[in-house]
Amino acid sequence: MTDSWLTSLITATPQEGFELAITLSRRGVKYTQPDPEVLHRLRPDYANSADSLTAASHVIAVNFQTVAAANNYWRT
Amino acid sequence: MTDSWLTSLITATPQEGFELAITLSRRGVKYTQPDPEVLHRLRPDYANSADSLTAASHVIAVNFQTVAAANNYWRT
Amino acid sequence: MTDSWLTSLITATPQEGFELAITLSRRGVKYTQPDPEVLHRLRPDYANSADSLTAASHVIAVNFQTVAAANNYWRT
Amino acid sequence: MTDSWLTSLITATPQEGFELAITLSRRGVKYTQPDPEVLHRLRPDYANSADSLTAASHVIAVNFQTVAAANNYWRT
Amino acid sequence: MTDSWLTSLITATPQEGFELAITLSRRGVKYTQPDPEVLHRLRPDYANSADSLTAASHVIAVNFQTVAAANNYWRT
Amino acid sequence: MTDSWLTSLITATPQEGFELAITLSRRGVKYTQPDPEVLHRLRPDYANSADSLTAASHVIAVNFQTVAAANNYWRT
Repeated sequence: MTDSWLTSLITATPQEGFELAITLSRRGVKYTQPDPEVLHRLRPDYANSADSLTAASHVIAVNFQTVAAANNYWRT
Repeated sequence: MTDSWLTSLITATPQEGFELAITLSRRGVKYTQPDPEVLHRLRPDYANSADSLTAASHVIAVNFQTVAAANNYWRT
Repeated sequence: MTDSWLTSLITATPQEGFELAITLSRRGVKYTQPDPEVLHRLRPDYANSADSLTAASHVIAVNFQTVAAANNYWRT
Repeated sequence: MTDSWLTSLITATPQEGFELAITLSRRGVKYTQPDPEVLHRLRPDYANSADSLTAASHVIAVNFQTVAAANNYWRT
Repeated sequence: MTDSWLTSLITATPQEGFELAITLSRRGVKYTQPDPEVLHRLRPDYANSADSLTAASHVIAVNFQTVAAANNYWRT
Repeated sequence: MTDSWLTSLITATPQEGFELAITLSRRGVKYTQPDPEVLHRLRPDYANSADSLTAASHVIAVNFQTVAAANNYWRT
């Protein structure tokens, strides 16, 4: 991918950090399967499976660890 | 999502931190599948499966690592 | 849950820390499925499956990381 | 369990630390399924499955992170 | 493997760090299955499976933790 | 196992560290299933499965976190 999508891990709030973790999780998928048609077709597979949603939340949790550490946990 | 649901990772007690980890885990699911009808329909799938419950506990454990580190493990 | 079950991550020994990690792992399950009847019914499913037991041990390992860090690894 | 099996995370060498990580992984299983008969019966299930062995190695890796950190990575 | 492919974990930007995490994830596969023919044949299996793509993103997330820590999270 | 196979986590380069992570991952398997005949027989099971290869790469990623931290990420 040649577009610039990740210039910093710093976010203003924990919630923005969580949403960045979601972006990272989705980018991990897109780098592996760049075809948007395929990704669109696969969506019902995981969006309607409890275990797939838990697995998606797991990846977000791992990426949120990274983003939270980068932001010193937004301690004030 | 436009609502504000995560303004801080700091909690008064470890137990509140654990409950925040549960919130983070559920939000990871909701960002992926925002439709409450679908989530309600899927509930029996994982709430009655030992392996799904273990997987849910796993995600909570990962998020609890983040919250616990943010709170310096509530050391006094 | 309104009961107080987690007031500190500090334990006297690594073994007590490991047992706290088990408690955390089980609580992660109970928050997701609070019905003790269901949990009792599911027990044979995972207690007699090698893969389920490995998955349970995995969650304990993640929680033990948290408890061990909280206790500075019980270094003396 | 009333026996004392974990009094310290400190080991003399990385290899002993890795073996302690294996002990922790097995204890995580035994706390969940204490019956040695059942554990013995389940052994062929995972010892002859590539995926089960990878999962076992995964749990060991997580516990080894904890033990290695406790020992400051045995840096000299 | 005798070629040199990993001389540093330091990258100029978080995005390059994320791409290095992808490289690490793929190398983990290639060390286990070095035959490019087999890898090419397996590609449709995971590139068209939602759960496989989530699993791939999970591995990338773990490696990104390492790369991000190595770069002090690209804090300026 | 009585042979000495892990005397240090320190490596000269990140690549050697990655290869040590692979060794750790394989040792985790061998401690659980020491029989080389069985391991040899199981190899086609995971070496030809996309999901098994991803799982193997995942374990390597976890062990690489440990090795990279031990080496202070080979920062110069």
